[in-house]
Amino acid sequence: MSHFLQSLSEDALFRSYSFYCSILVIKMMFMSSFTGFKRITFKSFISPEDAAFHGTKVSTPTENVERVRRAHLNDVENIPLFFVTAFAFCLTNPSLSWANFLFKAYTIARIVHTVVYAIIPIPQPARLICWLISYNITGFMALNSILYFLS
Amino acid sequence: MSHFLQSLSEDALFRSYSFYCSILVIKMMFMSSFTGFKRITFKSFISPEDAAFHGTKVSTPTENVERVRRAHLNDVENIPLFFVTAFAFCLTNPSLSWANFLFKAYTIARIVHTVVYAIIPIPQPARLICWLISYNITGFMALNSILYFLS
Amino acid sequence: MSHFLQSLSEDALFRSYSFYCSILVIKMMFMSSFTGFKRITFKSFISPEDAAFHGTKVSTPTENVERVRRAHLNDVENIPLFFVTAFAFCLTNPSLSWANFLFKAYTIARIVHTVVYAIIPIPQPARLICWLISYNITGFMALNSILYFLS
Repeated sequence: MSHFLQSLSEDALFRSYSFYCSILVIKMMFMSSFTGFKRITFKSFISPEDAAFHGTKVSTPTENVERVRRAHLNDVENIPLFFVTAFAFCLTNPSLSWANFLFKAYTIARIVHTVVYAIIPIPQPARLICWLISYNITGFMALNSILYFLS
Repeated sequence: MSHFLQSLSEDALFRSYSFYCSILVIKMMFMSSFTGFKRITFKSFISPEDAAFHGTKVSTPTENVERVRRAHLNDVENIPLFFVTAFAFCLTNPSLSWANFLFKAYTIARIVHTVVYAIIPIPQPARLICWLISYNITGFMALNSILYFLS
Repeated sequence: MSHFLQSLSEDALFRSYSFYCSILVIKMMFMSSFTGFKRITFKSFISPEDAAFHGTKVSTPTENVERVRRAHLNDVENIPLFFVTAFAFCLTNPSLSWANFLFKAYTIARIVHTVVYAIIPIPQPARLICWLISYNITGFMALNSILYFLS
């Protein structure tokens, strides 16, 4: 490992960034597996070769699977924005405890979002609140970075 | 802030990268809000709890909402590629003005793409041209990186 | 180029990371073009202005196009996770040859995944095996990073 990478991997802010990004990666990987699990449970497949592999035919979408798909798609739309904006935010000289708090709050909000959307669906505004927390954190970090790097 | 992060945040190329990435993050966040706004305006919801929250029922997709969804999905397919390839491109020793120009042109092309697709739909090839500009910039940076890091 | 970026672009681990990320970017860009090619071949468009541009009307989805769309969406769900987790993994002090092997295996698995899904569809478990290889590599790198940065 070069001297340079050594510094990067010892930086507390980058350690926090890498840690929460990795948690979010595992969280999103869970959505893929969960969709597959739901497809097999409800025998609801969209590719002929998958249906054939499970001895059935392609079927119309079922809400049980589609709900998980929508939760996953919401992750796909939102979480990669966190990956890049949190990286830029690390370069805006934030305090470690503040950055750490934002990363942690974002990660928890996204995990609870999935729980109330796809695992134990509960009425709104449960999901809306989770989404708003994560949305505002991303927005705060992005606006902060724009102002910091504008000059 | 460590000495290392200090250097990173003072590097003009990384400042430009972080700035344009943050603009693109805000641009994609707008798509999420805009979809929600359209769903509420046209009372077109796909999750039962969202429909219930607005005193209506789940409905079939409407073109007014789907058009915004497609524009958003096109962002989701393309913009994360910019995030990573522009990062790699920063490491290929490009001139600052050239990299800066590519980042700016990409960002403008993607914003205009959204305007002509989802906000004020106009006939093709308006959207095609925006898409081609951003597509070619991504491709140029990726091919450049492949050649640079091949050896 | 600053002294700092110089070090980054000379680091063998980062060179490998940037190289394979760029290959994956080109691979995903191919999916966009391939979808467009299929849409034109089968005259299957979802936006009225696209259909008008090709002298036809909006049509219901056809399996020939949808198969490519699904393969592309699978990339969109999975490959950005590699971008961020492989970055974090670079900071966990892995051996260069081991990291290089994982990046290369992931890239090959994703390319073969596309071939057996969208180009020359063959029965399962061909696609499943490719997906599992890439899924496990992402998971391995993410878990490794979590453990490394936990302390």
